[in-house]
Amino acid sequence: MIKVVLLGYGNVNSHLLNAFKKSEIVSVIQIFNRSNISLEPSLQGIPFTDKIDQIYDADVYIIGISDDSISTFSESLKIQDKLVVHTSGGAPMDRISQKNRRGIFYPLQTFSKNKDVNFDKIPICIEAENSQDFALLEKLGKTISEVVVEIDSEKRAKIHVSAVFVNNFVNYLYQIGEEILEEDDIPFDLLKPLIKETANKIQTLSPELAQTGPAKRNDTKTIEKHLKLLDHSPYKDVYLMLTKKLKQQWE
Amino acid sequence: MIKVVLLGYGNVNSHLLNAFKKSEIVSVIQIFNRSNISLEPSLQGIPFTDKIDQIYDADVYIIGISDDSISTFSESLKIQDKLVVHTSGGAPMDRISQKNRRGIFYPLQTFSKNKDVNFDKIPICIEAENSQDFALLEKLGKTISEVVVEIDSEKRAKIHVSAVFVNNFVNYLYQIGEEILEEDDIPFDLLKPLIKETANKIQTLSPELAQTGPAKRNDTKTIEKHLKLLDHSPYKDVYLMLTKKLKQQWE
Repeated sequence: MIKVVLLGYGNVNSHLLNAFKKSEIVSVIQIFNRSNISLEPSLQGIPFTDKIDQIYDADVYIIGISDDSISTFSESLKIQDKLVVHTSGGAPMDRISQKNRRGIFYPLQTFSKNKDVNFDKIPICIEAENSQDFALLEKLGKTISEVVVEIDSEKRAKIHVSAVFVNNFVNYLYQIGEEILEEDDIPFDLLKPLIKETANKIQTLSPELAQTGPAKRNDTKTIEKHLKLLDHSPYKDVYLMLTKKLKQQWE
Repeated sequence: MIKVVLLGYGNVNSHLLNAFKKSEIVSVIQIFNRSNISLEPSLQGIPFTDKIDQIYDADVYIIGISDDSISTFSESLKIQDKLVVHTSGGAPMDRISQKNRRGIFYPLQTFSKNKDVNFDKIPICIEAENSQDFALLEKLGKTISEVVVEIDSEKRAKIHVSAVFVNNFVNYLYQIGEEILEEDDIPFDLLKPLIKETANKIQTLSPELAQTGPAKRNDTKTIEKHLKLLDHSPYKDVYLMLTKKLKQQWE
């Protein structure tokens, strides 16, 4: 049995808890959080503490707090020589205090409250300072996902930048699409099958091969028409820039 | 039985053919194309012609060619007073020659060769000059999709701009994500579950509510770290602009 203590109970750790509870070889023995938390009925048996000096003895401690707080928080822990990992894509491993054995347990996914996530295919990017800890994190990862990969902090940083493009920026483009339609009371629902198919396509086709549209075809007439339609839109500059960049690669 | 002639056999019309062939009340009685086409075995019974003066008598003629050619092509047709529609999001209805009754049959989706598409949920945006033609297009649309909506040419143009954002530009961001990973030999596959979930999320959550990431959190440290990582990247300007725009909306 792998005994786990969750340090912090935000989006990532609450989703991890839901995933771990399905495993028979993982036991989340305690949740620490600075402020009180509300657990759904099926989880209410798990001990909770808001006192940093009352943290239980466990095999792995998983920090799920904001990047900026990892350093100070891990320094304030009373435990020593334990395996302490964080779950962030953006913070290097050495942000964790040296007084414990350090590691990374980064599920490469976007998590929102009230939106369940199936972990099966989610890459768990792990890193550790020694092979024994690595093996334990690998075992822990495999209890929730088929895809557990070793990724060092440098590569993880690159993954994190890429994730900003394909997740945060993509989602922002969805928002722009919605707002353009809203002006004319056209329901955003109409775009949803297109959004789904665009994401589905690149599961089997490279994005470059999947590309279509006026920029790809160098269809100047359509581009000009679109720019005219966006004349007073705050998103004209986004259209201009992305069209220019898109066209450049085929020049 | 609704008799259909396909005029042009590119991506849209070939996918429409595959959808129509499953319907019992639609019969594609002929395909016209300037150059020869290859049909899969199950479709080889459909008459083909490359001669514009040998087009059959039908209830609906569906033009599936490039936007720029619709005007000249529809002018060159020998048929008259027939219902002739095009399938483009970008071209207004009046691009079709006046010598026929005009309409629009625009499936709001991205089509690629060799990538099958399920039409069930794809919005078919229709428009016609008179109510009888409209009713026929509606009936035709409903044979392949549950979502058939009346959209005039002005609104369709707005939809088309939005589609560029949520499809072409989004796909370009996927490509950027892939290229950033490639530099460090990190497989793009790792991002695919994230891409899928980002698209899935907004099927039930508004993009604004679904947003996460450093720009949303105003996490200056992470943003600076990312900009440093992108220092020699051709995509630094894209990161800068989209981050700036994203942040502005919460200022």
